Amino acid sequence: MSAAEGAGGPNAQESAEELVDEARRWWQTDIIDVRPGEISLRGYPIQELIGNAGFVETVWLMLRGELPSRAHAELLEAALVASVDHGPHAPSIAIARMATTCGSPINGAMASAINVLDDVHGGPGQQCMQLYLEIDAELDRTDDLGAATRIVLQRHRETGMRYVPGFGHRFHPLDPRTPRLLSLVDAAAADGTVDGRFAAIGRAVEEAISEGRPRRIPMNVDGVTAVIYCELGLTPELGRGVFILARSVGILAHASEQMTQGGRIKGPMPKSIGYTYTGPGRRPVPPADERGTTS
Amino acid sequence: MSAAEGAGGPNAQESAEELVDEARRWWQTDIIDVRPGEISLRGYPIQELIGNAGFVETVWLMLRGELPSRAHAELLEAALVASVDHGPHAPSIAIARMATTCGSPINGAMASAINVLDDVHGGPGQQCMQLYLEIDAELDRTDDLGAATRIVLQRHRETGMRYVPGFGHRFHPLDPRTPRLLSLVDAAAADGTVDGRFAAIGRAVEEAISEGRPRRIPMNVDGVTAVIYCELGLTPELGRGVFILARSVGILAHASEQMTQGGRIKGPMPKSIGYTYTGPGRRPVPPADERGTTS
Amino acid sequence: MSAAEGAGGPNAQESAEELVDEARRWWQTDIIDVRPGEISLRGYPIQELIGNAGFVETVWLMLRGELPSRAHAELLEAALVASVDHGPHAPSIAIARMATTCGSPINGAMASAINVLDDVHGGPGQQCMQLYLEIDAELDRTDDLGAATRIVLQRHRETGMRYVPGFGHRFHPLDPRTPRLLSLVDAAAADGTVDGRFAAIGRAVEEAISEGRPRRIPMNVDGVTAVIYCELGLTPELGRGVFILARSVGILAHASEQMTQGGRIKGPMPKSIGYTYTGPGRRPVPPADERGTTS
Amino acid sequence: MSAAEGAGGPNAQESAEELVDEARRWWQTDIIDVRPGEISLRGYPIQELIGNAGFVETVWLMLRGELPSRAHAELLEAALVASVDHGPHAPSIAIARMATTCGSPINGAMASAINVLDDVHGGPGQQCMQLYLEIDAELDRTDDLGAATRIVLQRHRETGMRYVPGFGHRFHPLDPRTPRLLSLVDAAAADGTVDGRFAAIGRAVEEAISEGRPRRIPMNVDGVTAVIYCELGLTPELGRGVFILARSVGILAHASEQMTQGGRIKGPMPKSIGYTYTGPGRRPVPPADERGTTS
Repeated sequence: MSAAEGAGGPNAQESAEELVDEARRWWQTDIIDVRPGEISLRGYPIQELIGNAGFVETVWLMLRGELPSRAHAELLEAALVASVDHGPHAPSIAIARMATTCGSPINGAMASAINVLDDVHGGPGQQCMQLYLEIDAELDRTDDLGAATRIVLQRHRETGMRYVPGFGHRFHPLDPRTPRLLSLVDAAAADGTVDGRFAAIGRAVEEAISEGRPRRIPMNVDGVTAVIYCELGLTPELGRGVFILARSVGILAHASEQMTQGGRIKGPMPKSIGYTYTGPGRRPVPPADERGTTS
Repeated sequence: MSAAEGAGGPNAQESAEELVDEARRWWQTDIIDVRPGEISLRGYPIQELIGNAGFVETVWLMLRGELPSRAHAELLEAALVASVDHGPHAPSIAIARMATTCGSPINGAMASAINVLDDVHGGPGQQCMQLYLEIDAELDRTDDLGAATRIVLQRHRETGMRYVPGFGHRFHPLDPRTPRLLSLVDAAAADGTVDGRFAAIGRAVEEAISEGRPRRIPMNVDGVTAVIYCELGLTPELGRGVFILARSVGILAHASEQMTQGGRIKGPMPKSIGYTYTGPGRRPVPPADERGTTS
Repeated sequence: MSAAEGAGGPNAQESAEELVDEARRWWQTDIIDVRPGEISLRGYPIQELIGNAGFVETVWLMLRGELPSRAHAELLEAALVASVDHGPHAPSIAIARMATTCGSPINGAMASAINVLDDVHGGPGQQCMQLYLEIDAELDRTDDLGAATRIVLQRHRETGMRYVPGFGHRFHPLDPRTPRLLSLVDAAAADGTVDGRFAAIGRAVEEAISEGRPRRIPMNVDGVTAVIYCELGLTPELGRGVFILARSVGILAHASEQMTQGGRIKGPMPKSIGYTYTGPGRRPVPPADERGTTS
Repeated sequence: MSAAEGAGGPNAQESAEELVDEARRWWQTDIIDVRPGEISLRGYPIQELIGNAGFVETVWLMLRGELPSRAHAELLEAALVASVDHGPHAPSIAIARMATTCGSPINGAMASAINVLDDVHGGPGQQCMQLYLEIDAELDRTDDLGAATRIVLQRHRETGMRYVPGFGHRFHPLDPRTPRLLSLVDAAAADGTVDGRFAAIGRAVEEAISEGRPRRIPMNVDGVTAVIYCELGLTPELGRGVFILARSVGILAHASEQMTQGGRIKGPMPKSIGYTYTGPGRRPVPPADERGTTS
């Protein structure tokens, strides 16, 4: 076929001008304008941002469209610092470390690791934000925070929720990050930086799910960063996004440390330990015409 | 701390023997047994499989636990061949090609590409299988295939389904893969290789959703491979898995061709076309104490 | 700015027709032609390939441009079957399994896993092919295979090669896949399917590196599949590519098994074992103006 | 086999205690200590870092082991801000946007994108750092910066370097980020924060490669951030790592914007433009016994 026809063009009845216009709009964005010798982010010339806006403020600008106040940026910054790492046994970190011993460059190791921050490993904060926002919406119908909280939790239980995301921890009786972050939110609420509504909601959830139990089910780092992200007006999706940015720091640090330690094709545990095989015993391959009768 | 304590060990009251046992069970599998000088897959010594079982038969063995009959393997093989590629404008293929021009090795290019075969790009076949299986379950309550189909479709519409996965195509009036694959299923049903139940269900769905429309909404490649995978007894999850295996071939072929063509940091379209910036006009960065008032 | 200007267009002095032509050539390919109602791979209508060409033959077609003879396809098929899995302690497999417990869908689990088949974990076969091809090139200058082999190995040692890729195994005294695959190559050489040159080269490498050692350093699965891929005329890059296709089967099978087993955020070993922390002891955070003096 | 034997254990002659010790050392790290109720990063309790150390300072701590001075952190911060985005036509950004329209969650979209920041798209900064460090080493042998620069550039040319990484730009006649960042380095050198050696080296490279050309080949953002990272004592590998952290912000912002814009299976350009197929014309599939003669 000739190039002019364009394989894949179903009914190219548009003019060249129309096609070019369509192509230009294909990658339309509000975020960045790049022209020869000029770059601006959300309208701000890059050379004015450099040295003038901090990295976390730039994160906010890129995600939200405007530069934050310093107080807002500091609260986000605290949540990011709290989330950078939780040890080499976290799957994301272990994956990054194993990847470097397979020859992955730093970008590849980070990609394989970040990729597993999915609904279970990276999603609880996001799910917790959705829960808080639902309780907040329920408060339009009632002034009773405890009641609104119980209604929403009950609804979630009915749709099959087995864990309340953001509460309880398999490892820490009390997560050391929680009280510190909560105290920063309280201080920010006291001085009017945020309104404190979601801190109250988070505490109400902890209260409701701990009621009648021998031991409290305390808010964990996902639950308290969800409070902060909701106070700051992030969407749940962006909540997960900034968690990923934070955890990328730990991922990078561990990948880099493993590169220094060396190792080749490092498995999850020493080979000498072995693993348990539970499948069928050794058996001969049946002839082709005797296969498939049992499947 | 001393190494003996083990950071991360919450309450290591287990004996060393118990810990080793637990570690051995951690990676428990039915699939493969590896010992010095011996490898067996699902019980079959690897050296007996090599040259004796085809690649598609080995796929089946690994996923299902037993070797298939040749007729079953051939039907799976036809579905795989049908799915290897759909052109360089598919996001997965374009991504693989761009990746190689960024310096990604073949594994990296394939990983970035396969990763996007997610719910929308790689999931319709799996979702279509779920639909068929639901209709099949509904047939336990009625003998009327048309009625069962309408009931299930109605249920899906009520839960917000906007597209029926596996039907219709943005590009092909009739997907050339559909009639060919359907005829292979029909032949396999005729000779007793499969029972043909899901071919009937697929056709009933096409019938139901086309009714009263000026033009039929024909079964596409996802819909017909879903028929085949259901006939062969694959779970929907494995249906997506084997689609990914098939599409990996196209991803590899395109990545390899792009490596031959060369190019550096290839974007999605020629830079000369440009893109549309729709954000705020150029503006000065406000002083730190004047930020954040509008957010 | 107006859409017509096109942000990013440095000096758009091309006409709309020229831009469209350039855009059409941007994704130029020899592999697949897709038009409404028509799909052909390397010129073959997809509906003629389905049911008529096997999956491995289609792999060959996509990568090489022509359909292979059945004998060629069978040799490739044997190498693929040999490479599907090597147990859950291989980093790629462990990563796929951990990923599913983090909530990754099957595509995500496969992507994170395939991504680590990089130079060390997935590259030895490719590197071994390069070694064989170099020895083959050296044979243009001498008829003495042993001499050519020693010259090339010496050259590699001088450039820092510490392992000969494709030989020796940390685990198997003798890899059970090697003699079986070698016997298939020998049979294919005997009947003229391949010329057997690379089987001889592979054996010469084993001979040369084992000389004077108490125990032989035997060819492993990478070394013998490298023989096959060289005999079949694949490039080293495609050699790695088809290895990835094969290992994807094991990756998929293990990811799928782990989904069935369940588990949440599975780490590399049981948490009760813990890990060794070797960093600085607990210390207070210094005030801001006392930081950075030692770094 | 019994679980006690442990498949994969080649010669498990170690005692259970030895195996547990080995397992504990397997994931040894200097970075983080996690115990029930306690988390410390490089020895600092997490609750003291939160609200007390900024995010960029925490990045430094995680990567280097100590907290930086504020002046060092600010210089790193400026380099990070400069690197967050370069428009939707960059492959990494386009990939993130396409991925979301395929159903990828935010972690998946970021992973596919970060993965392509490989040697060509993400590596020039790292390569430029290596170049600077080599020139710096050469200065041990001579006091003449221009001479040392020419010697090292000549050496690189001889080993096949075609582009000097960090200099020149396909798009910007002068990169707006360069003079701004250079002025910050100069200020930091003037007040003793850094010694300014690498700023001089970077300028010497620009001088050397521009000599005798009608137009200068100016330092680009990779070249100037390489100056900063070298001044701050980062290794080249970590230089690439922090670039990836910075670009992750743009990747996240674009993925998030695309989620808001919507779209399904967005290709690289509008389908109506099509692409050029350059392979063989339509031809019939040959019978099985006539295949492979020409390949």
